[in-house]
Amino acid sequence: MAPGDRAVVVVGASAAGLRCACRLARLKPGWHVGVVEASPVFSYAACGLPYVLSGDITDPNDLRQTSYRAVRDVRFFAEEKGVAVLSGWRATEIRLAEGLLKVESPEGERQLRWDELVLATGARSRQLPGQVDHPRVRAFHRWDDLHPLLQGLRRGEIGRVAVVGAGLVGCELAEAFGGLWGAEVVLMEAGATPLPELLDPEVGACVARHLESSGVEVLVGSPVRTMQVDDDRVTLLLDSGKVTADIAVVAVGVEPEVELARGVGARIGPTGAIAVDERLATSLPHVWAAGDCVEVTDAVTGAPVFRPLGSLANRQGRTLANILAGRRDAFPPATGAMAVKVFDLGVAATGCTEARARERGIAVRSVWITADDCAHYWPEAKRIHLKLVYERGSQRVVGVQAVGEGEVVKRIDVATQLVARGATVAELAQVEHAYAPPYAPAVEPLAVAACAAQNQEDGVEAELPTCPLDTVLDVRLPEERERQPADGAQVKEVSVVELRDARDAPPAPDGGLVVCERGARSAEAARILLHRGKARYLGGGLQWREAARGANTGPAASAEDTTPEPAG
Amino acid sequence: MAPGDRAVVVVGASAAGLRCACRLARLKPGWHVGVVEASPVFSYAACGLPYVLSGDITDPNDLRQTSYRAVRDVRFFAEEKGVAVLSGWRATEIRLAEGLLKVESPEGERQLRWDELVLATGARSRQLPGQVDHPRVRAFHRWDDLHPLLQGLRRGEIGRVAVVGAGLVGCELAEAFGGLWGAEVVLMEAGATPLPELLDPEVGACVARHLESSGVEVLVGSPVRTMQVDDDRVTLLLDSGKVTADIAVVAVGVEPEVELARGVGARIGPTGAIAVDERLATSLPHVWAAGDCVEVTDAVTGAPVFRPLGSLANRQGRTLANILAGRRDAFPPATGAMAVKVFDLGVAATGCTEARARERGIAVRSVWITADDCAHYWPEAKRIHLKLVYERGSQRVVGVQAVGEGEVVKRIDVATQLVARGATVAELAQVEHAYAPPYAPAVEPLAVAACAAQNQEDGVEAELPTCPLDTVLDVRLPEERERQPADGAQVKEVSVVELRDARDAPPAPDGGLVVCERGARSAEAARILLHRGKARYLGGGLQWREAARGANTGPAASAEDTTPEPAG
Repeated sequence: MAPGDRAVVVVGASAAGLRCACRLARLKPGWHVGVVEASPVFSYAACGLPYVLSGDITDPNDLRQTSYRAVRDVRFFAEEKGVAVLSGWRATEIRLAEGLLKVESPEGERQLRWDELVLATGARSRQLPGQVDHPRVRAFHRWDDLHPLLQGLRRGEIGRVAVVGAGLVGCELAEAFGGLWGAEVVLMEAGATPLPELLDPEVGACVARHLESSGVEVLVGSPVRTMQVDDDRVTLLLDSGKVTADIAVVAVGVEPEVELARGVGARIGPTGAIAVDERLATSLPHVWAAGDCVEVTDAVTGAPVFRPLGSLANRQGRTLANILAGRRDAFPPATGAMAVKVFDLGVAATGCTEARARERGIAVRSVWITADDCAHYWPEAKRIHLKLVYERGSQRVVGVQAVGEGEVVKRIDVATQLVARGATVAELAQVEHAYAPPYAPAVEPLAVAACAAQNQEDGVEAELPTCPLDTVLDVRLPEERERQPADGAQVKEVSVVELRDARDAPPAPDGGLVVCERGARSAEAARILLHRGKARYLGGGLQWREAARGANTGPAASAEDTTPEPAG
Repeated sequence: MAPGDRAVVVVGASAAGLRCACRLARLKPGWHVGVVEASPVFSYAACGLPYVLSGDITDPNDLRQTSYRAVRDVRFFAEEKGVAVLSGWRATEIRLAEGLLKVESPEGERQLRWDELVLATGARSRQLPGQVDHPRVRAFHRWDDLHPLLQGLRRGEIGRVAVVGAGLVGCELAEAFGGLWGAEVVLMEAGATPLPELLDPEVGACVARHLESSGVEVLVGSPVRTMQVDDDRVTLLLDSGKVTADIAVVAVGVEPEVELARGVGARIGPTGAIAVDERLATSLPHVWAAGDCVEVTDAVTGAPVFRPLGSLANRQGRTLANILAGRRDAFPPATGAMAVKVFDLGVAATGCTEARARERGIAVRSVWITADDCAHYWPEAKRIHLKLVYERGSQRVVGVQAVGEGEVVKRIDVATQLVARGATVAELAQVEHAYAPPYAPAVEPLAVAACAAQNQEDGVEAELPTCPLDTVLDVRLPEERERQPADGAQVKEVSVVELRDARDAPPAPDGGLVVCERGARSAEAARILLHRGKARYLGGGLQWREAARGANTGPAASAEDTTPEPAG
């Protein structure tokens, strides 16, 4: 190596590590860039694993190939990227003073010299307390997790699956086992609704309802306390009742792999992941970290958070390569934008949920809307439900959640840009979008939500879509009422004209809750009542209520009853 | 009216006028809000008209209905919105000093008193110079324009259509006439490619190619000089050649309706539309304007521009209602985000094209990428082509254009947020997005484009996808070369390994142009050659080149030859 050239060792050959190594090798062709990776198979798209199980992707090797169908193996990285991947070697110890990394494999032990060390050690599956080590209890995070499950399904040995944890992977697995293979799936979640970290309960309830209508048994509020395994089945014991299945897949999230960092004294942050600054530097000189093993800064709260997302890992890898190469770059705070497909339902969110914001001491209000994803007269228009959470006083947008069969991800990607820069509801109301009837309505749903928030600040208050209904003023057309009667202790049917004429004679003692199909009309109507100081409408309308209706959001009191005999 | 209440008269019952009137009536229930509208049919979704012609929408009345199927007529606005629409009355004169508006109808003349006057007079179809007034020569902008064409198609009287102007409406009409009705369509455009105001030629060429492969005859560089009509056909005379058809639809854009404003002395801006400030105030006291009749401020250049888009009109209507009601609001500069569906191709853009930026004196560079719209291993992944235009020096993102069968509109909506706030390429490279394999790749295509721009600033220069090819270094795999050989005067097949080994021995005298399928690999490979001071690759790769190939982008020298005898 020429003077000034450096030896960089990267630990971990997944998104962050490899993107860092490959870019650095390009930017600094004289440097020696090596990657240490314990697994023989690496650089596969882990996020695609559920879709191999589901049969959407027929060949798992697709996940290891580039778009031009080159396999990303040791030879590929050496030849195409100029990066040496030491695959099958596990990093065991960092010797900081000497600039050495100890690695071992069945072949023996070696020491690698580094000037700069990058920890891209990733994350591993979390385990349940008391999780049994048995082939009937499986994780689903790595390449090796896939094949036993695929084999079991193909052989017809898995007729009933208990998926523990309705996070991103749990929801994907519920679809994967149910869809192609027709396995009975019980999805268990300790929280009140699916995706409890990402969605507030009235949004998560729409996911629960969709899972149920797709044939998945959803048990929420059901932490698994212990498990028993015998030759025939696995039994999960809940607070009340139990669930039996041929196999249990534990998908209760991941935790960062930090042993190597901890061993050398790098600072571990409050989330348990490696603490790094915006330059992805750890607390130790010349030791850097990126990917699922590090904390990032939350764009809304400024607090450190653990966000193991492939998209962030990829960006961090490139950012770190730039920094190591001496360029000015920094990894910015993240909103935690995420998306997941749950059967035909799109689910996406960005920023804080209402619950998370409150935990963090941010005073927030929310609005809910139901809208079409493109012009309502376009034959393929599909419905979306969108919740906007904003800060009281400052009116800052702190989070958006969206579910629906229509295009929700676009809205979240746009909202992410506003959340990231601390934009206000007023700015969201003026959000510009590309309008054409097949792609978007003339008024963007995000702007509709922002307008609802502005109206709420006038006193036109949105009520939770899943709230108990007392006196209801139904302002819909007669034909709409016929199709789907409104619920509520007392339902008064009233037209907007009647409401306007009767604005001084209260139609209900407490002012009543105005309802319509989607919330927009009832919000307008509610404003008529505003001068009496009371104006409330059902956020998201009866359509949101319907989308969330009947989803089991209580504790699983009757789990025992719903558990049939195990199949096969 | 109570003291403080005001009379507001709105001229024009389309998006801007009605949204303003309805919201104002809600915010100020004591005020008198009236709307004057010349047409008996109003408040229809004009952007949906092409889709009635195409048969996507079977009942034109769908365009006049709310999502809950109420017809938006005079009674609807009176009862549901508290807004009086005086339909069938034409505003003829503003009497500023007296606060009166003269209106007339077959019934006679009236004068309406106003305290605040809103001009939402919209736009009308532009005419060709020498356009003949004849039933065989039609516009396509209003409700009344639809029915004669629909009737002609249903009766089989329209076998061949000449669409003059390949703007948004022209492209939609080409699809509409061709798709359901199987009419022969000739699409004529004075510019070098379709959508010349919105897309640079190498992007527009992809649209031309797609139109042609969908059966549309595209004649670009073909301004229509004169036309002749007889009982059987219409003949359009070009500089060289002519086109005959059963009917000609002139879709050369719209121009603002400003006669009323001009008549009272309101300032007309450089674009010919009514000049307004950010509060949508005209130059005259208590006279306001919104919608397709006004100029807006371009977010990139700061210059006034004419952007007749329904999305902007809608937002302006609400903004103006807020302002009239005494609230603080302002209509911000617009990027001009737009989208259009052309058969199976999505087309969208935001900000300035390269050509427009240069006209405005902004020094820009561009990059081009070809990417998948979701994870490349997802079976429904579709291709998109994306062009990023950024300012030299400041690195500010000034525009993005995207075409493809995949999801392009999402990218443009996101890019719009960055263009609107003057974000840099470095910020775009860090754009956060919601990632899940069915919805997005782990690395967002917008970020890929930004990275390409950063690489270009290092000297890894992207060449125009449609550039002439001299010495070409093809770094693809042998099987890719077999599927689709690279063109070029001299093609050298070279692997990345060979390129790295030969980095000091020029593989081509001028350094050569590195090519691959999509541009990413060739950009990486080009960097290997960078230390020799020359590194160029084909932007967007051979796939972009292929998508644009063969599209007629020269003058229509052979128009005569391609014109068969008229049908029907």
